[in-house]
Amino acid sequence: MTQDSLFVGLDVGGSAMKAGVVDDTGRPLSAVSLPTEPQRGQEKGLERMAESIREAVQEANVPLERVAAIGVATPGTLDLHTGYILDPPNLKPWQNVPVRDYVQRAFGVPVAFQNDANAAACGEAWVGAGRGTRSMVLFTLGTGIGGGVVLNGNVLVGEHSHGGEVGHQKIEMTRPRQCGCGRWGCLEAYASATAVVARTEEALAAGESSSLSGLAVPLSSRLIFEHADRGDVLAGRIVEETAYYLAVGSVNLMHCLDPEMVVFAGGMTAAGEGFLERVRHHVREMAFPVLAEKTQIRYAELGGDAGFIGAAWCARQLLRTPNS
Amino acid sequence: MTQDSLFVGLDVGGSAMKAGVVDDTGRPLSAVSLPTEPQRGQEKGLERMAESIREAVQEANVPLERVAAIGVATPGTLDLHTGYILDPPNLKPWQNVPVRDYVQRAFGVPVAFQNDANAAACGEAWVGAGRGTRSMVLFTLGTGIGGGVVLNGNVLVGEHSHGGEVGHQKIEMTRPRQCGCGRWGCLEAYASATAVVARTEEALAAGESSSLSGLAVPLSSRLIFEHADRGDVLAGRIVEETAYYLAVGSVNLMHCLDPEMVVFAGGMTAAGEGFLERVRHHVREMAFPVLAEKTQIRYAELGGDAGFIGAAWCARQLLRTPNS
Repeated sequence: MTQDSLFVGLDVGGSAMKAGVVDDTGRPLSAVSLPTEPQRGQEKGLERMAESIREAVQEANVPLERVAAIGVATPGTLDLHTGYILDPPNLKPWQNVPVRDYVQRAFGVPVAFQNDANAAACGEAWVGAGRGTRSMVLFTLGTGIGGGVVLNGNVLVGEHSHGGEVGHQKIEMTRPRQCGCGRWGCLEAYASATAVVARTEEALAAGESSSLSGLAVPLSSRLIFEHADRGDVLAGRIVEETAYYLAVGSVNLMHCLDPEMVVFAGGMTAAGEGFLERVRHHVREMAFPVLAEKTQIRYAELGGDAGFIGAAWCARQLLRTPNS
Repeated sequence: MTQDSLFVGLDVGGSAMKAGVVDDTGRPLSAVSLPTEPQRGQEKGLERMAESIREAVQEANVPLERVAAIGVATPGTLDLHTGYILDPPNLKPWQNVPVRDYVQRAFGVPVAFQNDANAAACGEAWVGAGRGTRSMVLFTLGTGIGGGVVLNGNVLVGEHSHGGEVGHQKIEMTRPRQCGCGRWGCLEAYASATAVVARTEEALAAGESSSLSGLAVPLSSRLIFEHADRGDVLAGRIVEETAYYLAVGSVNLMHCLDPEMVVFAGGMTAAGEGFLERVRHHVREMAFPVLAEKTQIRYAELGGDAGFIGAAWCARQLLRTPNS
């Protein structure tokens, strides 16, 4: 590997896959997006992955020979050790898909395979909100809450490919909400975008008055944050509680891992700096003093590019000697 | 460093400090214990540390020259980067004690400095319950709940010397108990030995009938576990709830870190295999299936020696090149 080496990162999502060529400093030279269409089956899916990678290289206008390694990130469940997607709820009906081997055979270079949220954490730690930090915890706020943990410059994979499932820490025992994972009391059941909507719908159904009542459009977390900004009391309470829940999740990881930084990614980050300041407020109330003072709490910076950039970082790591 | 190198580990506690010479395979060649007597001041405390180390070497009957490095573990709060004890609640009135520099000057060898619970995790991971594992989370159950996290064979120190404070994850929001740290809802407030006694006293004060009522001796967690074994309903419920709380704490770390093993240390481990089996039961109910099946849940094996053996391991690590 030289400083001229290039990497391709591919981030496979339920509806689209995004690929890009990334240079040794983390700068993307291209970014292409193709529909995943998982319903067409996993063989077509694998072909589409190869196609995305080729298109990314073409758009970057570089020879394929300069691509030193490829990184592929996909939703779980995965076996990171064997390089298989196992039984992914977001890519039905795929099952037991040998992603790493397929891409390796197609392109003849080393291929890294990573969970999508872990890859996003790698991207943010490399050239996003966490650039220059050694350790960072990422929460991705969407339908669910995923995440990734970077420690000493390495992403935490875990012994059974389950490292970084930070949305599935239990924060409530007495009156736990049920989580999308089927368990009870997970952070995700309180603070994902889906949970924000569900909690608001429950309050409305209980008869609380709000400017959100009887709207013609379906509720969304964005709408709820907007009504909170405009002074609606119910929406304001929901948003404030959400900041508190995210602070609980953050403090738990700060106390167990003590990272330099906690980063929030996903659609809810559109809520802006005021919301983040509320999260910081609750963190300061709950964390050990030195951590309350020193741990940085930020929004992610790479948006939808974090996954493929992080996948490229994983590819780059493959070629690095342990201390380079 | 050669395979003949020896290390001294010193574990400073509130009432006693324990030191021992440990060989390169983790075998202790000696173990001595001296009173800490923190009330006599930190100068005396530092002298006592040096005395303990010299006595350990003497008892092992080896020349001081064979000691390649020394590890010192103490209670917090610490600054692991500078090697200072800062403001330790368990070593009052000590403040800002330059432990690492003092021991280094006294013996002229490299000195590692570590939090006591982290050191215990190192000891267990080296030659105790976790020997042969790459990653392990330790919970130490006593007056409080401390702990340590070992990942890829390294103990997690954290960016601000606070890594591994696993007892201070918040597991309850609705009706949180107050923790010894002043915060609310921490695992420690539910499942430390102190919390087990407090929860029992509250139930007795509320008038629940129990064979624990009106005893001449003060309640202890040991007594409560004994009465549970003998069939007392209240004690049985307290013990079962404690197993559940510890499972919640374990699952949270399993989901975030996915270690090979979770280990419990401290006096409460005298409760025996039946109690551990209840913890495992609740973990199986709450964890992701693959983790429920594969993560090992065990008791610690080194008892009160884990700290000094782990401190010696930290000393040994100082001399190792990153990949040896």
